[in-house]
Amino acid sequence: MQDLPMSIHEGILREAEEANRAAPLLTDEGVAEALGRVGALVRERVSEIAAASREDVEAASGRLDEGTLDRLRLDEGRIEALAAQAEAMASLPPLERVVRVWRQPNGLLVQERRIPIGTVGANFEARPNVALDVAAQLLKSLNTGVLRTGGAALRTVTCLVDRVLRPALADAGLPPGAIGLVRTADREGARVLVSLPERISLVILRGSGETTKDLARLAAESGVRTLAHAEGGGVLYVHEGAKAERAVALAEESLDRLGVCNRLNLALVDRAAVGMLPGLLAVFRERELDVRGTERACRHADLMPLDAPVGHEWASDPERVSTVTVDVVDGLEDAVSIANEQTSGLTAGIVTEDSAAAEHFLDRYRGTVGLWHATTRFADGFELTGAPETGINVDWVPGPRGPVTYRDLWLRQYRVIGDGTQHR
Amino acid sequence: MQDLPMSIHEGILREAEEANRAAPLLTDEGVAEALGRVGALVRERVSEIAAASREDVEAASGRLDEGTLDRLRLDEGRIEALAAQAEAMASLPPLERVVRVWRQPNGLLVQERRIPIGTVGANFEARPNVALDVAAQLLKSLNTGVLRTGGAALRTVTCLVDRVLRPALADAGLPPGAIGLVRTADREGARVLVSLPERISLVILRGSGETTKDLARLAAESGVRTLAHAEGGGVLYVHEGAKAERAVALAEESLDRLGVCNRLNLALVDRAAVGMLPGLLAVFRERELDVRGTERACRHADLMPLDAPVGHEWASDPERVSTVTVDVVDGLEDAVSIANEQTSGLTAGIVTEDSAAAEHFLDRYRGTVGLWHATTRFADGFELTGAPETGINVDWVPGPRGPVTYRDLWLRQYRVIGDGTQHR
Repeated sequence: MQDLPMSIHEGILREAEEANRAAPLLTDEGVAEALGRVGALVRERVSEIAAASREDVEAASGRLDEGTLDRLRLDEGRIEALAAQAEAMASLPPLERVVRVWRQPNGLLVQERRIPIGTVGANFEARPNVALDVAAQLLKSLNTGVLRTGGAALRTVTCLVDRVLRPALADAGLPPGAIGLVRTADREGARVLVSLPERISLVILRGSGETTKDLARLAAESGVRTLAHAEGGGVLYVHEGAKAERAVALAEESLDRLGVCNRLNLALVDRAAVGMLPGLLAVFRERELDVRGTERACRHADLMPLDAPVGHEWASDPERVSTVTVDVVDGLEDAVSIANEQTSGLTAGIVTEDSAAAEHFLDRYRGTVGLWHATTRFADGFELTGAPETGINVDWVPGPRGPVTYRDLWLRQYRVIGDGTQHR
Repeated sequence: MQDLPMSIHEGILREAEEANRAAPLLTDEGVAEALGRVGALVRERVSEIAAASREDVEAASGRLDEGTLDRLRLDEGRIEALAAQAEAMASLPPLERVVRVWRQPNGLLVQERRIPIGTVGANFEARPNVALDVAAQLLKSLNTGVLRTGGAALRTVTCLVDRVLRPALADAGLPPGAIGLVRTADREGARVLVSLPERISLVILRGSGETTKDLARLAAESGVRTLAHAEGGGVLYVHEGAKAERAVALAEESLDRLGVCNRLNLALVDRAAVGMLPGLLAVFRERELDVRGTERACRHADLMPLDAPVGHEWASDPERVSTVTVDVVDGLEDAVSIANEQTSGLTAGIVTEDSAAAEHFLDRYRGTVGLWHATTRFADGFELTGAPETGINVDWVPGPRGPVTYRDLWLRQYRVIGDGTQHR
């Protein structure tokens, strides 16, 4: 740590220590009350929050692209949505702490339990609503947290932490330091956040690209675990048994937003279904997308050739967000192989009226969310489980994979009670 | 990878690719049959296995300490235990693939499912029985694997893979390559095993110390996830409400073996219970242990002073396995703080007749297994869940924490079925 500017390091350490001390004091009732207060305070302080956001947006204008600026912006409508979301979180059921209880043949009483993780770090993009979302989920699972936002949103996030979250915690009788903040826009802040294993054992890393990979590596070297919410890119496979209208409708619905990880990124059209290709292309052109075809797709339609790997995620390519890839595949096996091997494994759907084909596709697909006649946009914690997500984890590891919600943010613990008659 | 000798790299890559191809072909029925055949083949080839083990032990004699040699040795009794264990695994229920099914308010049908991980690597100490245990658990969870044993056991493990596991898989109509092996004693083999993210996304790392930490770091840099089965050390806290006989009995039972991670490592005696200290010390002396006291413990008894951190794990300190640490603590809060902050967080138990104190201790303890009137030796997958474990994970991260068994070795996947009427 010698090479870190001490002021950043010390500042974050202080927030982490405060969050550590707060961790054992959280209760389900207290958190529900605090989240209710978050809703009220967001409404009370709407103009203050909006003003902070305007300052952030003004400072970033010209420096950041339109999509990023849009995500940075909190207008009154979006602020009201924040309040509603916090209240919705408040009313969700708390985690059941006891998963199972059983008695071993020798009489030993065993409980499998969920205990809080402690203090969790969260590093996210310059989107102030994410700060409130993530903080709410950490609290709801009785964890405390230290947040770090992309620098462009620091004013707004500071306002949300100091003027909403902390007062709400205090109003509910909980320690306000339960939510800490990295109070610098310096990227060094993110590096410190993933380097304090004694204080912050787990860090949620949103975002993709080299910066995130570097953070993950640094975390690993420091003995800090990460939940990576990285690559995405939805796949839609149009099988020969598809109805053309359904394929078109699903493609349309999967493209309502372009900067999100679960949008349609790669359309796979079966060779036996190329008759449906023109209809899909019409949808893409209507959305004014830059349609890129693989070599074999270009043989079937007049497309610009693809100049990236087939699974390349356009949503995380700021210059080319409005792009979609089209491939023509040799059948179901080919489609599912591409989805499994050439994409991040976030989500893939099939369009077909042939239920045996759908089942085969779903049985073979290994990503986090497999779909049949449903848009890839449903690969989302709120849409699937009713709880907002911290992000979607595409790791190939047991644990919270796919959409991660507060229901995932716990540690397994066994509690064992004997009476002196149990011997090994 | 340029700096790796290509022959080792190529050899492991070949085993991994074979295991990859085998992964989709495993079935619950096939695996149960194969594990039954493992039992039969172990018995059939007992003298062959014993001969390989004798060769390993002879080659290692003088080079390795007695404890390690003992773990390396497979005599006929232990070989019979291997057969029985494989048969027990065969008869355990397979994983339920569907965890939950529900219908969202919009009509969307959602299934939460468990899918296999694929090919899992396992790096373990020179204990041949671990090879069979781990292979059985990987297969039982429908994963394939590539095993790497500590070099001293390579002959025996090779015999178990090539003469037992692979023939058993073939007899059951499954691809024998489902279990691969790192066929070199060179440590480079372990480094390659954790550096093939496309082939092996997860590696189980047994063992502790710098070598394991280095492997974990290399894995992280390579984008390979690990389940670390590292530090251990059981804690027993004798509360003022304890009965002396019970404390003595639990201490005795927690010391039946000294080289295992869940043995009694640190005895915490309450200041108000120091009357029970002599009885505990008598147990330790009877076992001929080197008893080390913290400064405050030395004030209460004539002990050699502790020359290591209070949580130091003696079981993984080959020179000093027969050591136990004693501390005298200021009360329950002090005891639970030491267990939480100064030890690995594997397991801690309390001895007390005061149920409120026991509950308070268990509520505050954050390790993987908390115990009341039960020996720390129960911190074990088989003892708690009836399924043998691959090891005990002490990570502070959601997922399989504590004893990890085949029931943990899966990935979460959502399957979503719409009918065209669900819109975002």
